[in-house]
Amino acid sequence: MFGQIDHIGVAVADLDEALALYGGRFGMAEQHREIVSDLDVEAVLLEVGDGHVELLKPTSPDGAVGKFLASRGPGLHHVAYRTDDIEATLEELKAGGLQLVDEQPRTGILASRVAFVHPKATGGVLIELVEPAHR
Amino acid sequence: MFGQIDHIGVAVADLDEALALYGGRFGMAEQHREIVSDLDVEAVLLEVGDGHVELLKPTSPDGAVGKFLASRGPGLHHVAYRTDDIEATLEELKAGGLQLVDEQPRTGILASRVAFVHPKATGGVLIELVEPAHR
Repeated sequence: MFGQIDHIGVAVADLDEALALYGGRFGMAEQHREIVSDLDVEAVLLEVGDGHVELLKPTSPDGAVGKFLASRGPGLHHVAYRTDDIEATLEELKAGGLQLVDEQPRTGILASRVAFVHPKATGGVLIELVEPAHR
Repeated sequence: MFGQIDHIGVAVADLDEALALYGGRFGMAEQHREIVSDLDVEAVLLEVGDGHVELLKPTSPDGAVGKFLASRGPGLHHVAYRTDDIEATLEELKAGGLQLVDEQPRTGILASRVAFVHPKATGGVLIELVEPAHR
């Protein structure tokens, strides 16, 4: 169903500080930076192997990451698994009775198509499905 | 410094329920199950691409995962990055002034050598370094 771990999403309060850690000390290459308005975040993708770390700084306190940061503080926000057919994966999960946040894909970073599974259905883990755009 | 995301660690209260999700619905192959006494957990590794999901059920309420579960509930516990020389990586991080939980590697699942970086030093993310055993 999933190809691999596409990325982990990390909620951060300060992007510069986070970049000094991930880009500076850990030496991960910064691949891309983007305001993802659908998710109310400024996001930075860094490369690690063929996966990524996605740093997420809220652009609004009322978005999902803004609320997460206010209630739990900075830290691991979600894990994203790669799929090459997000509609089929969503159908399969829905048919299995899994509660979804997004029944239809929305637009993620780098024009990827993404959808979230509800953490109530996954033992408290926010899981994102990602179908990357053909780059 | 890091080769790739080796795995994500997920704290679970009920291993059977978690396996029904990850192994059953998501179709990830169960690779290995082990009591990791150094970490006070029963752990199950499942395959996703060339990475893994590591399900962690505490064997004691006083271990790190037991305390995590009691205070935050089930969910994402850590992210592990693969290294082929854990001593060198630890030296490099220490030289950069990063606070470590483990200054020396300890034994993780499948006889891997692992060490944790302190979440205070990483914006709230518990990061594990893993040098896999030669399998």
